[in-house]
Amino acid sequence: MSLSMYQASIPVLIRMMSNLSVILDKAAAYAETKKIQPSVLVNARLAPDMRPLSFQIQSVSDLAKGCGARLAGVEVPSFPDTETTFPELQARLAKTITFLQSLTPAQIDSSEERNIVLKMGGREAQFTGQAYLLTFVLPNFYFHVTTAYAILRHNGLEIGKADYLGAR
Amino acid sequence: MSLSMYQASIPVLIRMMSNLSVILDKAAAYAETKKIQPSVLVNARLAPDMRPLSFQIQSVSDLAKGCGARLAGVEVPSFPDTETTFPELQARLAKTITFLQSLTPAQIDSSEERNIVLKMGGREAQFTGQAYLLTFVLPNFYFHVTTAYAILRHNGLEIGKADYLGAR
Repeated sequence: MSLSMYQASIPVLIRMMSNLSVILDKAAAYAETKKIQPSVLVNARLAPDMRPLSFQIQSVSDLAKGCGARLAGVEVPSFPDTETTFPELQARLAKTITFLQSLTPAQIDSSEERNIVLKMGGREAQFTGQAYLLTFVLPNFYFHVTTAYAILRHNGLEIGKADYLGAR
Repeated sequence: MSLSMYQASIPVLIRMMSNLSVILDKAAAYAETKKIQPSVLVNARLAPDMRPLSFQIQSVSDLAKGCGARLAGVEVPSFPDTETTFPELQARLAKTITFLQSLTPAQIDSSEERNIVLKMGGREAQFTGQAYLLTFVLPNFYFHVTTAYAILRHNGLEIGKADYLGAR
């Protein structure tokens, strides 16, 4: 046996988004306890020219739904980036998870060699399904999950690696 | 065909560590240009109770060499965590990459079902090779690469996503 494209993608993406959802719940509770306007955290950044927490969550969602849809060969669902509150960010994660849960292993497996074309900036990037998952989706997805974690951690939220990794 | 354990691990880990090495070069040059003591960056953190840059690089190395060795069924090389300068951190990444390059696809492939036992804190965690790679190594590895990036970005280093992802 070997690794399947499904195993290496969909359950991993769902798991990390579920963990991120628990972290966002803790962030909302922290804002309430500390009398911090939730928007302060939603708009927090690690540097003036880095993107805020809301963007990190939207990127996580975009990478996950793009991955599932492109590997399965179905249309990528379009979610407008309009979230400005914790409940809205939670809803964004939830509908992304629901979409991924609708995809079956049969749709995703054998997508290693599928030709994936991404529009990035003005140009097109071409990948095999395997290269798309391993060198584009996963590094970018983990980047934005970790940056969301780091923004909240930097702003005083008491979370640790176990929150990021989730329960085994 | 499907994804091989080798493809999903070794080239990915080497690639991201090579990108991180270029980022550390930029950080060292930035310290020199701005007359910042390099140790300020090496010891920088995103929160007082988060670990500094040096620890992030050591963790990246530990996860990468642990993954390669455990999936191949060879002894994990022991590198003492003594690095306190950019050249030492670069050397740590370089010897980790050299170790991974010494492993062949034949050693790593078919490790999906290998029993992996990790000592974590006081207890032992058991994984199949596949679960070890997908739910332990990759999330943790990307966490520490991204945190290293975020620490430097937060401290004014002008890097972007292209530095993190590397050239295609």
